Amino acid sequence: MFRTAELGQAVSKQDFKKRALHLRQRLLETQILLSRHAPFAVMIDFAGVDGAGKGSTVNHLHAWLDTRLLITNAYGPLTEAQRERPKFWRFWQALPPKGMTGLNLSGRYSLPFLDRVNERISDTEYVAELKRIGAFERALADDGMLILKFWMHLSRDAQEERLKALEADPELAWRVKPKDWQHWEQYDRFIETAERTITETNTDYAPWHIVEGVDSNYRLLTVAEILLEALEARLHAVELAADLDELVDHDVLNAEDQLPKRPKGLVTVLSTLDMSPKLAKAEYRNKLRQQQGRIHLLQRKAHEQGRSSIVVFEGPDAAGKGGAIRRLIPTLDARNYRVLQYGAPTDEEDAHHYLWRFWRHLERSGRLTIFDRSWYGRVLVERVEGFASRDEWRRAYAEINDFEDQLVEFGVVLVKFWMHITPQEQWARFESRKSVVHKRWKLTEEDWRNRGKWYDYEEAAHDMVKYTSTHVAPWELIPANDKNFARIKVLEAFGDHLEKALEND
Amino acid sequence: MFRTAELGQAVSKQDFKKRALHLRQRLLETQILLSRHAPFAVMIDFAGVDGAGKGSTVNHLHAWLDTRLLITNAYGPLTEAQRERPKFWRFWQALPPKGMTGLNLSGRYSLPFLDRVNERISDTEYVAELKRIGAFERALADDGMLILKFWMHLSRDAQEERLKALEADPELAWRVKPKDWQHWEQYDRFIETAERTITETNTDYAPWHIVEGVDSNYRLLTVAEILLEALEARLHAVELAADLDELVDHDVLNAEDQLPKRPKGLVTVLSTLDMSPKLAKAEYRNKLRQQQGRIHLLQRKAHEQGRSSIVVFEGPDAAGKGGAIRRLIPTLDARNYRVLQYGAPTDEEDAHHYLWRFWRHLERSGRLTIFDRSWYGRVLVERVEGFASRDEWRRAYAEINDFEDQLVEFGVVLVKFWMHITPQEQWARFESRKSVVHKRWKLTEEDWRNRGKWYDYEEAAHDMVKYTSTHVAPWELIPANDKNFARIKVLEAFGDHLEKALEND
Repeated sequence: MFRTAELGQAVSKQDFKKRALHLRQRLLETQILLSRHAPFAVMIDFAGVDGAGKGSTVNHLHAWLDTRLLITNAYGPLTEAQRERPKFWRFWQALPPKGMTGLNLSGRYSLPFLDRVNERISDTEYVAELKRIGAFERALADDGMLILKFWMHLSRDAQEERLKALEADPELAWRVKPKDWQHWEQYDRFIETAERTITETNTDYAPWHIVEGVDSNYRLLTVAEILLEALEARLHAVELAADLDELVDHDVLNAEDQLPKRPKGLVTVLSTLDMSPKLAKAEYRNKLRQQQGRIHLLQRKAHEQGRSSIVVFEGPDAAGKGGAIRRLIPTLDARNYRVLQYGAPTDEEDAHHYLWRFWRHLERSGRLTIFDRSWYGRVLVERVEGFASRDEWRRAYAEINDFEDQLVEFGVVLVKFWMHITPQEQWARFESRKSVVHKRWKLTEEDWRNRGKWYDYEEAAHDMVKYTSTHVAPWELIPANDKNFARIKVLEAFGDHLEKALEND
Repeated sequence: MFRTAELGQAVSKQDFKKRALHLRQRLLETQILLSRHAPFAVMIDFAGVDGAGKGSTVNHLHAWLDTRLLITNAYGPLTEAQRERPKFWRFWQALPPKGMTGLNLSGRYSLPFLDRVNERISDTEYVAELKRIGAFERALADDGMLILKFWMHLSRDAQEERLKALEADPELAWRVKPKDWQHWEQYDRFIETAERTITETNTDYAPWHIVEGVDSNYRLLTVAEILLEALEARLHAVELAADLDELVDHDVLNAEDQLPKRPKGLVTVLSTLDMSPKLAKAEYRNKLRQQQGRIHLLQRKAHEQGRSSIVVFEGPDAAGKGGAIRRLIPTLDARNYRVLQYGAPTDEEDAHHYLWRFWRHLERSGRLTIFDRSWYGRVLVERVEGFASRDEWRRAYAEINDFEDQLVEFGVVLVKFWMHITPQEQWARFESRKSVVHKRWKLTEEDWRNRGKWYDYEEAAHDMVKYTSTHVAPWELIPANDKNFARIKVLEAFGDHLEKALEND
C-alpha cells in the first residue's frame, strides 16, 4: 500500500515557488469564499509516521492561509474533563463550524491505533473502534462536512535517517523523543496496522490520501493540491464555484480616497511616533532567523513550565498584523498555539457581557494565543462606529485593565502590539493590493470607509494607550511603515517579554 | 448585623399556601416574560451558615419555577481545567445569558471566605479579593445583569440544633459532614468574616439580603418576595412591566379545536397502550414519599461512584413532563443536577451537526441531567414540521443510537420516557388551563396548532420507538392520562434503572 509513497519524490525550490503561488492564492480565495457563505465545514486529519512532517505541514498551512479561519486541534493525553465524558466528547467539542477549517493532529485514530500496535487491544476490538470512527465521519459528512485524511509516510530507512539527522542538529535534537525510536523499532507493526486502518476507513466521504513525507516542498504541495481540488469540487457542488472569480469588489477598486484633513492641534502618541526606522533586506533576513530561533527555544521552555502567552495585535487595516503573525508562527509547535479572530458576536455572545467571548476561549497552561484584533474592539471600532455607547466604552478601560490584571497575575505573558502606519502608507498599500491579482480580494469597501474616520480612530487609539498601558501590560507601539523593521521589532519585543517572564520564575 | 435574622421567624403551613400561590404565579410570569424578551440576565447567590437552607431553597425554586429557565452552578474544588486558568474563568464560563436566571451555590465568595476564616490570608488580602469580586459584579451590573445575594443565617444555637436534628434522623444523618461541625466550632469567626464581607460588598447594584434560615417556609417566601420585587422593578425600568399582564394570548383562549379524525388503520405502539391505569390520591402520596426516598439514596450512591444519569422526557404538550420532573427534583442534591431544554438552535449550534449541542453540554461524572425534550426533536417536531429533510431525519435514528450507545458504554444511566396522553385528555387539560388564571399563559397558539398534526406526531413517535428502543436504551412508555399514576411510574422506572446499574458495578 505504501510503496507508491517511497519513491523519494521531491520538488526543487524553483519549481516549488512556481507552483506555490497559484495554489496559495486559490486556496486563500476558497477559504474566504467559505467563510463568507459558510456552506460547510472542512476537517483535515494528519496521521502517519513520526518525522513525516505532520506538524510541519500544519504550520506551513498556517503561514500560507488565513490563520483566522483555521482551528488546529492537537490531542494529547486525556484531560480530567475528557476522562469524565465519553471518548468522542473531545472530538465533538472541537469540531469546526461551517465556514471554518479544522486541522487535527493525533486525532481520533491515534489512541486506538497505538493500542493496536502495542497489542493492548485485539484486531476485533480495533475494528470495532474503527467502526465507531466511521460512524462519526459518516454523520459529519452527511451533514455536509468536507473530510480529508492524510497519511504522511516515510519508509523505514527514511524514518531512521530523519531521526538521526534531527539528533545530529543541536538545535533540533530535542524533537526526538524516546517514543520516536520506540515507534521506529515497531515500524513493521506500525505499517501493518496503518494498512488495516486505511483499508477499513477509506470511504468516499472521508478518504485517505497517502503522501510521501521525505521532502517538505513535495508534501506541502501535494497536500495543498489535494485540498484545493476537493474544495473546488465541493464549492462547485454547492454552486458557489463561480463566485470564486468574483471575490474582487470592482467598485472598491475604483473608490476615491476619503481621508479627511488632519484636525488642527491633534497630537497623539501615534502622531509623535518616529515612523522613519527601516531595516535593509539582508539585515532583516539575518535578524529574522536569529529571533525566530530565540523565540522557538523560549516558547519551548515556556510550554514545559506551563507558562501561557497571549499576544494581541491591533492597528489600522494593512498595517501588517497578518504578516507579523506569519513570521511568529514558524517558531511555534503546531500543537501549542492558536490564532483567534473575533468578527461580529454570535447570538450566544451577544447575550453576555462583551468580555465573555474572550474569557470563554482562554487556553490551558503552556499555550500561546494570538489575537488578531481583540477585546480592544470595544474602545476602537465600537467606539468610533457608535456600536458601544459612550458609557459602555468609557467603563471598558477599567474592565479591560481588570481582565488583563487577572491574566498577568495568573502568570500569563501578555504582550500587546499596536502596529502603526501613516495614512499615506496605507493608501500606497491599498493601491498595491489593487494591482496584485492575488491580493485584490483583500480590499473591501470597509477599508476605504475606515479611512474616512482615520483621525477618530487615531484619537481612540491614543485614549486606549493612555488608559490601558499599565505597568503589568504595556502597549508596544510599532512603527510599521517599513515591514521588515516592524516584523523584527515584534519578534524582539515578544522575545524580550517572554525571556523576562521566564527569568523571573 | 445578624440580630434581625435571629428572631425565630416562621410561617405556618396555611399562611404559606396563601402567600405562595400569588408569588409563584407572578414569579413564573416574570420568568416567561424575561425569556421572551431577554432584556437582561439574573444572577442569584446563596451564601451563609451551613444548614440555613441554601441548597434546599435552590431546590424549592426549581420546583416552583420553570426549571428550563434556571441554571444552577454549584462550585466545588477546582477542576484541572479551572486550575489552568485565572480564578474567575469558571465564573465567567457559567454566567447566565440574557433571559435566563443563574443560581449560585458556593460561588465566588466561598474560597476567599474560607481562606479568611481559617486565616490562610490576611484581612488586607481578603479585602483585595473582595475588591476583585466587586469589580466583577460591577461589570455585569453595568451590562444590565440583575444581581441578588442572599445570606442565609442561623444563630449559633440554631445551627447546633439543626445539625443535631439531622444526625438524629437515620435517613438524613449523611448530610452532616465533619466540616459542618468544624464550621460550627468556628461560628464566631465565621460571623465576623461574614460581617466584613457584607459590609465590603453590599452595593446598590449587587445588594446582600440577610434571611433567617430556621423555617423553610419563611425563608423560601422571603427569598421569593425579594426576588419578585427586584424583578418587577427592573422590568418596570426597561418598560416591560405592563407586558406582565398581557402574557395571556386571548386569541388562543378562543381557539377552536383542530384535531383531525384518526386515520383509518393507524395502529401504533401508542394507540395500543393501555391508558386506563389510575392511582388514588392516598396511594399516590404514599408511593411518592417512598419512591422519592429510594431515589434519593440511589442518587447519592451514584454520585459517590461517579455514575452519571441522563433522563429524557418526550411527549405531547400538557402530558405532564414538567410535573414529573418537579417530583424528581426534591430527591436530588441541588449541586448535582441540571434540567436542560433546547429551543431553536443558536447560530453557533446551527453551524454544527444537530447532535453537537447535546454533546457540548454533557455533564461531568456523577451528575444527573434531565432533558425536557431532547435530541429526539430531530425525528419528532423537525420531521413533522419539515425542518429536517426526509434524509436527515431518517439517518438520525442510526446517529442517535450511536450517540446513546456511547453514553451507555461510558457508564451513563440513560432512561427515556415517553409521557403519553390521549387527545381527549389534552383537550381537557388545555381547557382547564384557560380557566386557571396562573396557568393561562402556558397556552400558546402552537399548542393548538400541534393538535392539528396529532396523528403525524403519533406516527413519528411510533417510528422513533421502533428504531431507537434498543436493549441498551429502551423507551419507557408512560400512560399519563392520570397524573398520579404517571408520576409514580416515572419515579419507579428511573429508580429501577438506577438500581440495576449500580448493582452491576
